[in-house]
Amino acid sequence: MITVKDNKATGLQVAYIGGGSRGWAWGFMTDLAMDEQLCGSVRLYDIDRSAAQRNEIIGNRLSLREGVKSKWTYSVSDSLKEALTGADFVVISILPGTFEEMRSDVHLPERVGVWQPVGDTVGPGGFMRAMRTIPMFVEIGEAIRDYAPEAWVINYTNPMSLCVRTLYEVFPKIKAFGCCHEVFGTQHLMCRMLRQEYGIEANRHELYTTVTGINHFTWLTRATYKGMDLMPLYAKYASEYADGYDEGGDKNWMNSSFSCAQKVKFDLFRRYGAIAAAGDRHLVEFLPPWYNDCPETVTRWKYGLTSVDWRVRDLANRMKRSDDLIAGREELNLKGSGEEGHLLLKAVLGLGDLVSNVNVPNRGQIPNLPLGAVVETNALFGYDRIEPVHAGPIPQNILPLVARHIHNQENTLRAALTCDRALGFTTFMNDPQMGGVSLEDGQKLFDDMLENQRKYLPRGWFE
Amino acid sequence: MITVKDNKATGLQVAYIGGGSRGWAWGFMTDLAMDEQLCGSVRLYDIDRSAAQRNEIIGNRLSLREGVKSKWTYSVSDSLKEALTGADFVVISILPGTFEEMRSDVHLPERVGVWQPVGDTVGPGGFMRAMRTIPMFVEIGEAIRDYAPEAWVINYTNPMSLCVRTLYEVFPKIKAFGCCHEVFGTQHLMCRMLRQEYGIEANRHELYTTVTGINHFTWLTRATYKGMDLMPLYAKYASEYADGYDEGGDKNWMNSSFSCAQKVKFDLFRRYGAIAAAGDRHLVEFLPPWYNDCPETVTRWKYGLTSVDWRVRDLANRMKRSDDLIAGREELNLKGSGEEGHLLLKAVLGLGDLVSNVNVPNRGQIPNLPLGAVVETNALFGYDRIEPVHAGPIPQNILPLVARHIHNQENTLRAALTCDRALGFTTFMNDPQMGGVSLEDGQKLFDDMLENQRKYLPRGWFE
Amino acid sequence: MITVKDNKATGLQVAYIGGGSRGWAWGFMTDLAMDEQLCGSVRLYDIDRSAAQRNEIIGNRLSLREGVKSKWTYSVSDSLKEALTGADFVVISILPGTFEEMRSDVHLPERVGVWQPVGDTVGPGGFMRAMRTIPMFVEIGEAIRDYAPEAWVINYTNPMSLCVRTLYEVFPKIKAFGCCHEVFGTQHLMCRMLRQEYGIEANRHELYTTVTGINHFTWLTRATYKGMDLMPLYAKYASEYADGYDEGGDKNWMNSSFSCAQKVKFDLFRRYGAIAAAGDRHLVEFLPPWYNDCPETVTRWKYGLTSVDWRVRDLANRMKRSDDLIAGREELNLKGSGEEGHLLLKAVLGLGDLVSNVNVPNRGQIPNLPLGAVVETNALFGYDRIEPVHAGPIPQNILPLVARHIHNQENTLRAALTCDRALGFTTFMNDPQMGGVSLEDGQKLFDDMLENQRKYLPRGWFE
Amino acid sequence: MITVKDNKATGLQVAYIGGGSRGWAWGFMTDLAMDEQLCGSVRLYDIDRSAAQRNEIIGNRLSLREGVKSKWTYSVSDSLKEALTGADFVVISILPGTFEEMRSDVHLPERVGVWQPVGDTVGPGGFMRAMRTIPMFVEIGEAIRDYAPEAWVINYTNPMSLCVRTLYEVFPKIKAFGCCHEVFGTQHLMCRMLRQEYGIEANRHELYTTVTGINHFTWLTRATYKGMDLMPLYAKYASEYADGYDEGGDKNWMNSSFSCAQKVKFDLFRRYGAIAAAGDRHLVEFLPPWYNDCPETVTRWKYGLTSVDWRVRDLANRMKRSDDLIAGREELNLKGSGEEGHLLLKAVLGLGDLVSNVNVPNRGQIPNLPLGAVVETNALFGYDRIEPVHAGPIPQNILPLVARHIHNQENTLRAALTCDRALGFTTFMNDPQMGGVSLEDGQKLFDDMLENQRKYLPRGWFE
Repeated sequence: MITVKDNKATGLQVAYIGGGSRGWAWGFMTDLAMDEQLCGSVRLYDIDRSAAQRNEIIGNRLSLREGVKSKWTYSVSDSLKEALTGADFVVISILPGTFEEMRSDVHLPERVGVWQPVGDTVGPGGFMRAMRTIPMFVEIGEAIRDYAPEAWVINYTNPMSLCVRTLYEVFPKIKAFGCCHEVFGTQHLMCRMLRQEYGIEANRHELYTTVTGINHFTWLTRATYKGMDLMPLYAKYASEYADGYDEGGDKNWMNSSFSCAQKVKFDLFRRYGAIAAAGDRHLVEFLPPWYNDCPETVTRWKYGLTSVDWRVRDLANRMKRSDDLIAGREELNLKGSGEEGHLLLKAVLGLGDLVSNVNVPNRGQIPNLPLGAVVETNALFGYDRIEPVHAGPIPQNILPLVARHIHNQENTLRAALTCDRALGFTTFMNDPQMGGVSLEDGQKLFDDMLENQRKYLPRGWFE
Repeated sequence: MITVKDNKATGLQVAYIGGGSRGWAWGFMTDLAMDEQLCGSVRLYDIDRSAAQRNEIIGNRLSLREGVKSKWTYSVSDSLKEALTGADFVVISILPGTFEEMRSDVHLPERVGVWQPVGDTVGPGGFMRAMRTIPMFVEIGEAIRDYAPEAWVINYTNPMSLCVRTLYEVFPKIKAFGCCHEVFGTQHLMCRMLRQEYGIEANRHELYTTVTGINHFTWLTRATYKGMDLMPLYAKYASEYADGYDEGGDKNWMNSSFSCAQKVKFDLFRRYGAIAAAGDRHLVEFLPPWYNDCPETVTRWKYGLTSVDWRVRDLANRMKRSDDLIAGREELNLKGSGEEGHLLLKAVLGLGDLVSNVNVPNRGQIPNLPLGAVVETNALFGYDRIEPVHAGPIPQNILPLVARHIHNQENTLRAALTCDRALGFTTFMNDPQMGGVSLEDGQKLFDDMLENQRKYLPRGWFE
Repeated sequence: MITVKDNKATGLQVAYIGGGSRGWAWGFMTDLAMDEQLCGSVRLYDIDRSAAQRNEIIGNRLSLREGVKSKWTYSVSDSLKEALTGADFVVISILPGTFEEMRSDVHLPERVGVWQPVGDTVGPGGFMRAMRTIPMFVEIGEAIRDYAPEAWVINYTNPMSLCVRTLYEVFPKIKAFGCCHEVFGTQHLMCRMLRQEYGIEANRHELYTTVTGINHFTWLTRATYKGMDLMPLYAKYASEYADGYDEGGDKNWMNSSFSCAQKVKFDLFRRYGAIAAAGDRHLVEFLPPWYNDCPETVTRWKYGLTSVDWRVRDLANRMKRSDDLIAGREELNLKGSGEEGHLLLKAVLGLGDLVSNVNVPNRGQIPNLPLGAVVETNALFGYDRIEPVHAGPIPQNILPLVARHIHNQENTLRAALTCDRALGFTTFMNDPQMGGVSLEDGQKLFDDMLENQRKYLPRGWFE
Repeated sequence: MITVKDNKATGLQVAYIGGGSRGWAWGFMTDLAMDEQLCGSVRLYDIDRSAAQRNEIIGNRLSLREGVKSKWTYSVSDSLKEALTGADFVVISILPGTFEEMRSDVHLPERVGVWQPVGDTVGPGGFMRAMRTIPMFVEIGEAIRDYAPEAWVINYTNPMSLCVRTLYEVFPKIKAFGCCHEVFGTQHLMCRMLRQEYGIEANRHELYTTVTGINHFTWLTRATYKGMDLMPLYAKYASEYADGYDEGGDKNWMNSSFSCAQKVKFDLFRRYGAIAAAGDRHLVEFLPPWYNDCPETVTRWKYGLTSVDWRVRDLANRMKRSDDLIAGREELNLKGSGEEGHLLLKAVLGLGDLVSNVNVPNRGQIPNLPLGAVVETNALFGYDRIEPVHAGPIPQNILPLVARHIHNQENTLRAALTCDRALGFTTFMNDPQMGGVSLEDGQKLFDDMLENQRKYLPRGWFE
């Protein structure tokens, strides 16, 4: 039972689905520990129970740390039902399948010339990931409907739009939304621009950006800082850095699986007149293979392909870190993660209104996109409500790029729910990344990729 | 040329259409004088030039006062063109016609049993007022298009919805919005409720209310204070005060032309489950004559009819006060007016984002009302933008009440623009207040009311 | 099992819900008997089993008559399940309740000054009739879903729009449509006009009329005969007969419960510029009490109020006629009924395409009315399909009149499904016929009318 | 002045824009000559005046022939104004540019691997053709607005959707529609199927097909013949002929520029479950290069690429034939052309209603496509009206394929109207046929193709 008093909420019960997460969970734990306005307990649920147990230890250790502002209690739940019953909030952050399936998602399409930097949202990889993720979200959505119908649900899992769409499909009254930090990155970029061009030290929260589109392919059609229109400045800046940041900020795209030189983003601005607000790695996957038809093109556009080999090595590091955290050889950094989850949580608890970008079904906030599709715009968060802010019609020149994915996603959902191979294949082939692949090569790829994740798919696919 | 620096905007040019206003203008002047973040000049335009000149004196005197935080310059313009050229902001607050026409609007329908408390928005009085106001707004809208197309335009004139609708009809790219304080009153009522029921001293800005509907017939479908849902409390409160505040607050409905005992409002809550957010005097005019079929019923529901005689006396007082202000026998009270105009102005200048209720064309913020109709919802105000907040569909039981006025208003606009007597009459008769009037009585009333304001109407009506 | 061969369909199975009908059923039987393209069997189901048995005899006798072109077999079914199982077509033509309830519907509102000529569609009578009819259609719709999901369903029961709407509510995939002959009457009127004005003998099937609106409040926005636009002619004609047909055609409104002098219809044309296409008795019920505020006004507008006393006498006559038909003292007239049911049935069997007016959910055929509402427009009937013809937007001046009923009907349906007194009462009072009735009188009337049909209502109303 | 009497219309005035046409005009002249219900005069306008003069001679000679049923008068007009003034009907059938530009449209994209069978609708060729055609239609639409605003306008020019869209853009009240025979071909295919499978000799007018989509990419979602559902039969047939008609009908795809083996069409049915209703040559152009990535693939799918060389030879033949017709060495065959233009013309004259497929702006006939886009569905044609028949929502799996072209066409229109190179290029590259082309190759192609038709483009493109 939540108590809200003196601008503080106590007694919160959070169900964390995917609570064995190595990395993301630690940031969330830290954000909770460092926010004096919130306190309560977190129930960790994970199909890998031992991973959840490790995070239980790490979380409870954190509460013993000096300097934490709020002492949360962590426990492991053995079932969705146990985790959800009584929950006020549900966090969903799962990894659907293993690196084995992810390797198939990301790398198998290379054989037909499709080089995916991420492979988890759209493209052949995103489609296949959706095939195994959607059934999991059907199960989660039904469990929420049955055990925590009034809870607020925050999803962080990809493919974001389809995960949220699935939750609303199985439980239309769900209070779910999807959060993603990609837009923040572009806001940081504009802060950097203000610093470089005008010597202004701005915080991204001081900017206002009109956000429109879909997750990982979000566009800013307006950006202001106080009484300043940032769009003309961005135009100038994008032109100055048309070849990308050659060396940049605190990270360098050449050595990084996640960074980019912003060169694609600046090129898109030149072509479309709006600011694409996600990492270049994500953006290129929504387009024809203009920026990623081969590794050389990728290099030329100055961003990295995130290989699954890298992810395997990275996990090994995080596993080791997990050992260290449990053993007390390392402590979590008490600085915030930069995510906004806990802030949104506070807003819906009534601890202060907030405007932020969010993924929810379109109720008219983008009037020229289909109703019901999950879109990303700003919303006004407040006590027990999220009210989307009207983004205006998506610009006519960008509309075709976004609408095609929205239509594809609806068919992706249908295919996943019905195990329909004909629908699945035409949808798979209709992705812009597949625009140059023959029917024969595509069919073979489709069959092989389904086969590669056979164990995570409903039997209907193979009957 | 506006300069925004150090969280302050200087050099603003405001065109004030209806700048001879006795009363409302003084509050606006005071709000400007007491806001240290804003400074500039105001050009007063009024068809009654001498009234504008008097306000010029009053305004400039105010700038000389000790204690004012910002010194504005006031001048009189001789034409719309002169007032508008170079303007950054346009304020429209005009009185269409004189008390003679208003007397016809408000009181003539009494002969067919229609007792209007206000008569300026809907009902036979509102319709007739629209007939003479719309042509004025056509002229104003065209002048803004020609001389100040980039200016932000704030309208305060009634009938609000139709005034704003007309501006968008003649100049679709206009940046106009309509402001009205009626919702604030209902928010104050809820603050009173919090004080009475829980001893909580809340400020109306600390509440959040989801606003939906049309001006003067606006509904709150959600109301919260911090982490508290106010709807159950309001249900209890409305039930406790089902017979209205018998004595109340700082004003008493029996002696006041503007106050009410909230009895209608509480009754509507019981029937419809949402909070009607305007004075009872306005609310009853949007409904069949349930609450105002005769003066006795009005008394029973505990609100006042605002007679034009009262208005005549009130004006005489204000005229005298104007003399006093000019002569320095009286000084304007430097306390704020409670209006939000200057705050919204600051928001669109980039001096801080703000959420407030506003009247703008429906772009999907109320998805089950026609697009283009002027509706009232919350919006997010910020630098050079107003983005409506999605109010959700208007509740199905309230929809018919609101939709009928929206359809009527569209026909009212057409009738005014085309001087179409057939369309005008059917629209006039379709108003719920006219629901019990015969065709014969209605026709006679319609003809007489048009005749009574002949001098303010286009000749097309009489050809 | 239907066989379609040589332009003839045999083996049809028709379920007739309300098969004990005295009158309408006989016309339908005759139409079937005289159509050589159709043959099969009819299962009569009625809660008054003996009435169905009488029609069984009458129907089977008809098949023995010389001169009939098709010999149908009639039988009685004891349950909806029995009647529906295997049915290719379902005809629904029931009388919800008895004359006792109808008397309450039609006459009780007279005490508050509401004089209803029919009282079965809208107004207080139509509302109350809906309260008892909708639960019956819930049952019928569910039975069709369970036992005859592929059957085509023709409804003739009033309130038409709500009956069809209810069927789609409980079984969205139902293939149901509503038929009504009111539009035909107005087409006949235009044939008469052609004869009188130009000496042209036209058949109503030779006219084309663009039909839009809702049942019994349908409007013709375009009417042509071959290459002739009938609208200017109708304008002239309506003006010539502004005072109605004083003596007329084969029926005289003064002696008839069903006829009218068309005076209301001509008046509406003058006001709205489109042709209201239903009997004046129906039309006046959709409007404020302009044409029916008292019996004298009714007389002045030259149409009749259909009293329930008349209906009681009429039924006695039909009962006697039923005896005569069974005993062979009278034979059914083999001339067609003028209804189109059997023609539409042939069209959906593939025996020839047909354009006719029909009541089905709005899928965009009237783009400015809400989707899903049951509207009346033309449709193209063909094998296993009914495709609405796009009627264009309903004219802006007529829109408010129609839209208010559509919104009311949605609330009427909700009230009936949920037994919600608050919603029921506000909907009841929002009807234009109730526009001059006080809340107190209205509440009393509402309660009494519900009580009067208590035995036909779900218990939820009284708990 | 048209006279409609005795089921015959005389005195028609037809303006024929592009009246110098060699081929199509002759069929139209013959259809008019052989229809005894119609008579009047045709004014031929063509920027190639001598071509119009030749057709004047051919047309007037035809009227002298024995056996013609109606004697039309042909004359040449020297301007759009002269041709249009007084016209009741306008036929538009122009060739935008010459074979030189068409060669660029069709063949230049081969250098980047895009093999277009037709190149006049979508794809790089269709885009470029639109760039020069849209300005011509702006001029024609404005002339119709000025000189023949009440005339019915039939367009036959490609790109069909964009030509009709442009007419409505410049003159929203135009009564224009686009006709195309491609759907007829698929209806003929189903007649052939009926003959082969069941020995039924059916005429295409005896079928009913629900038509949905856009011109040249039209889909049949339902097809019936009398009381028979043709979809299951088509499924069987498509499967039997999965490899196409190897030898077929009266034409053989291997030797023909226009025929096909229907193999693509059958394959699409298998994948999408609806019947694509245009020649395979057209269909493949709307898709990724699945069926035309190289000439070998084209051969494998058994249809022909229509080379411009072939068109040049074909024109030479037609020129020679024109000489022969003028000299009387050859006579026009008096058999009908198979087009429906004259039938639709009769329908809008009031000589009999007709249902046929037509290209007009979407007013809701396909509810899940954007309003205003030009779509192809059935419509009910009658006196002075075309009322679209509601086609239902386009199937969800086909929606993405159609919607992307609709969005692209809107941008194509904008680019043509504004000479916007950035918008033009992104639109050009967003076409599915370009899905595998790099930005660099695409840019070079775009620039070269614009340059190749420089003389037909507004100067804005080159400033």
